[in-house]
Amino acid sequence: MKPKHHVFVCMNRRPEGHPRGSCQSVGAEETFNAFFGELEKRGMFEEVFVTGTFCMGPCDKGPTVVVYPEGVWYGQVKPGDVTEIFDKHLVGGELVERLKIM
Amino acid sequence: MKPKHHVFVCMNRRPEGHPRGSCQSVGAEETFNAFFGELEKRGMFEEVFVTGTFCMGPCDKGPTVVVYPEGVWYGQVKPGDVTEIFDKHLVGGELVERLKIM
Repeated sequence: MKPKHHVFVCMNRRPEGHPRGSCQSVGAEETFNAFFGELEKRGMFEEVFVTGTFCMGPCDKGPTVVVYPEGVWYGQVKPGDVTEIFDKHLVGGELVERLKIM
Repeated sequence: MKPKHHVFVCMNRRPEGHPRGSCQSVGAEETFNAFFGELEKRGMFEEVFVTGTFCMGPCDKGPTVVVYPEGVWYGQVKPGDVTEIFDKHLVGGELVERLKIM
């Protein structure tokens, strides 16, 4: 069954000191775990898929999260933002404007 | 700028002999490279994004490829299928029915 929303969380890792940095170096693993924890807590496994990815591009604004089919890009997503993304966007259908990068 | 299509290629790797297998064990790296090579050849970097991912679920039908915003899931995608996916779907806007798994 297809999900209603598919959340992609960049988990890309670059070597320490790499000029482009990486989402992992700014906490992407914690952000991914927060999405997965929230998914489990709400039991929304059929409506929402959460997938870790390699680089999606905007490395300077990581951790990057993209939600499809809406095609919304969120930047600097911290574990503390995840409940709001669920409540407002994934459940409520409204975008979280303050986190949008495109 | 947002892409017209975002292609996600599962690149998940599991240890040799793992009961669920993995997309990497059935050639996902070659499939990813074929997408990237075709993207370069056609110079479609603005219209099409290609991103490698961790597990997306249908491990028994790998390599798995998902295209958004359409939300089309293709299975057992080999490097030899990639030109057709570009021609028919990413350029032509028509799905490649023979590869669809959902």
